[in-house]
Amino acid sequence: MKFIHTSDWHIGRQLHNQSLLDDQRHVLSQIVALAKTHEVDALVVAGDIYDRSVPPANAVALLDEILNQVVNELGIKTILIAGNHDGHERLGFASRQMQESGLHITGPLTAKISPIKINSPSGEALFYPLPYAEPATVRTVFDCDAASHEAAMATLLAQVSDDDSQGLPKVVVSHCFLDGGSESDSERPLSIGGADKISPSLFNDFSYTALGHLHGPQYKGAEHIRYSGSILKYSFSEQHQNKSVTLVDIDAAGKASIELLPLTPLRDVRIIEGELSKLLADGIKDPHREDYLMVRLSDKNAILDAMGKLRTVYPNVLHLERTGLMAQSEQLAIRADHIKKGELEMFSDFFSQVAGDAMTDEQQALMVDILDTLHKSEDNQ
Amino acid sequence: MKFIHTSDWHIGRQLHNQSLLDDQRHVLSQIVALAKTHEVDALVVAGDIYDRSVPPANAVALLDEILNQVVNELGIKTILIAGNHDGHERLGFASRQMQESGLHITGPLTAKISPIKINSPSGEALFYPLPYAEPATVRTVFDCDAASHEAAMATLLAQVSDDDSQGLPKVVVSHCFLDGGSESDSERPLSIGGADKISPSLFNDFSYTALGHLHGPQYKGAEHIRYSGSILKYSFSEQHQNKSVTLVDIDAAGKASIELLPLTPLRDVRIIEGELSKLLADGIKDPHREDYLMVRLSDKNAILDAMGKLRTVYPNVLHLERTGLMAQSEQLAIRADHIKKGELEMFSDFFSQVAGDAMTDEQQALMVDILDTLHKSEDNQ
Repeated sequence: MKFIHTSDWHIGRQLHNQSLLDDQRHVLSQIVALAKTHEVDALVVAGDIYDRSVPPANAVALLDEILNQVVNELGIKTILIAGNHDGHERLGFASRQMQESGLHITGPLTAKISPIKINSPSGEALFYPLPYAEPATVRTVFDCDAASHEAAMATLLAQVSDDDSQGLPKVVVSHCFLDGGSESDSERPLSIGGADKISPSLFNDFSYTALGHLHGPQYKGAEHIRYSGSILKYSFSEQHQNKSVTLVDIDAAGKASIELLPLTPLRDVRIIEGELSKLLADGIKDPHREDYLMVRLSDKNAILDAMGKLRTVYPNVLHLERTGLMAQSEQLAIRADHIKKGELEMFSDFFSQVAGDAMTDEQQALMVDILDTLHKSEDNQ
Repeated sequence: MKFIHTSDWHIGRQLHNQSLLDDQRHVLSQIVALAKTHEVDALVVAGDIYDRSVPPANAVALLDEILNQVVNELGIKTILIAGNHDGHERLGFASRQMQESGLHITGPLTAKISPIKINSPSGEALFYPLPYAEPATVRTVFDCDAASHEAAMATLLAQVSDDDSQGLPKVVVSHCFLDGGSESDSERPLSIGGADKISPSLFNDFSYTALGHLHGPQYKGAEHIRYSGSILKYSFSEQHQNKSVTLVDIDAAGKASIELLPLTPLRDVRIIEGELSKLLADGIKDPHREDYLMVRLSDKNAILDAMGKLRTVYPNVLHLERTGLMAQSEQLAIRADHIKKGELEMFSDFFSQVAGDAMTDEQQALMVDILDTLHKSEDNQ
């Protein structure tokens, strides 16, 4: 039997105040198309469906649209669990009424973990949806004394192990932080100081573990204990990641084979570096100049409205770093006598950009006089 | 065929900052029990399911709990429409995936109004769910120029009239303000200046119209064009209303007969009036002293911590009006020379309540001296 494992959709998320809803619709539609092409039996989304516990209404509408396509139009069974970003009660509302349609949403953790059986001509498997749960929640729901994330997960997995699957492969769906996993800037830590880390070996005995939380695709411990990664780059730290969904094929013996199906974003998220003039010249020829960009300008002179100039070529510059200027200001801070010269240089840059020409010697001498007068009046105060 | 018509649940609403969730669970459980006892074929909730477009998580959990009982445990078809208080996208999420279970939620208005057929051994009917929609929304969705609420409703009802029900009775479910309807303090006006009013005659031709919005049970135009009213008194202005749900029985000829099934609140909402001492004495014998109360105190003297005293007997006093004192202060405002006497009286009341006895003549003379000294020092500033 075949299914697609994905996670960390974070629908409704913004990147540097830029709505990503169109970008999310673009890749979610690819997932729908991949599910159809590969004729999968199920779609599994391992948490962080929304970015916030109260998602904006248009995020809710987008998820509704995608689920209509997958569940109703394609007739593919769909399993969603709540992640640490999701509002568990809100996401889990009316989930019991959705089950008959083939949509299985697990919101709050319950004492009975009910497996979902997916039948297909090519085989069967039981899926165990474990929503994200703090150790305190596990203690309350299971009346146990699990102190750590690891102990809490062990409690949940004991239920899964004890469940009689009548020989069918078991697939665990979970949202947690496995020890040794690579983080990105866009994940919200589950707890402070590493107390959230869980040993991958807990999951050894299951046919496959579909994980969510970490945004880079990766496996830990063994190939069948795997993070699909997020559907988009949600921070510039992810610029070199290749986003994908995981196609999982489980054979009759319960052995999982894995293939990564790449996702192509509407706009990539990347960092460009260099001098303004060069970046502007390069940009005109860049077919991907509408990507979401962080720009690091190496120019050492002041530039009037650098962001405005960049956006004439790269409309989606989201963040600007003046790396050249930062290095210079560090020098200035060390040598106090440079401060005055700094002002003259700054004005000189400003003048040449506004006037189109550099200052004449006469103009420059006048400016030095003005600066001196200003500084003297400051000293007298 | 038989169904229960109710509306304006407003789950998550507060009354003077008091959560009503337990009270709502109490009456909603009664509705579940009534649905079971009367063996109804359907439950219809005509809007304002929640009190706010983003309801609190425990309100979502309560609705989930009630729907599990009605839809899954009793197997009763349930129809919910969004009212003016509801977030249409949020309420309508995954509604397509819920339909097979017998739960029909209509969130945003769509160009195609799809009737819901309810079959039962005793007959069949088609239900037309019309969510609350501003005229602007109707203009956009139907590409028409309906300027008023009445014109917008006429547009929607034309679809209902045109639909071929193959001779089956038509039931309209709607959330609007019918001209001549009696308002309460707890409804949020749909628009300013009466432009929200719709003629009841628009609904004449349907077997029954299940309305929501007005909180008092009532019919307009004809007995089969009816508001069920809210499930609880959501303002003190409703103290004399009797809350109920409407049991509707539609015969084969499409004729509706109606019975009101009363709801009994966990705590009533009412106003009591009188002098503090009498109210406290009466309260001890009052089996309903835990009701939500507005108290109008007729005492003309100042009372130290009147609210605290009342709450020792009536724990759920939510609002206090000093009607006796208000009358007195009006007099005081007119006669400026009463102000000083006012201070002495105030202190005298305070003294006797704290000390248990009235001031002696000596104490009173001393107080007059102190007040005089204070006023003199004020005059000198």
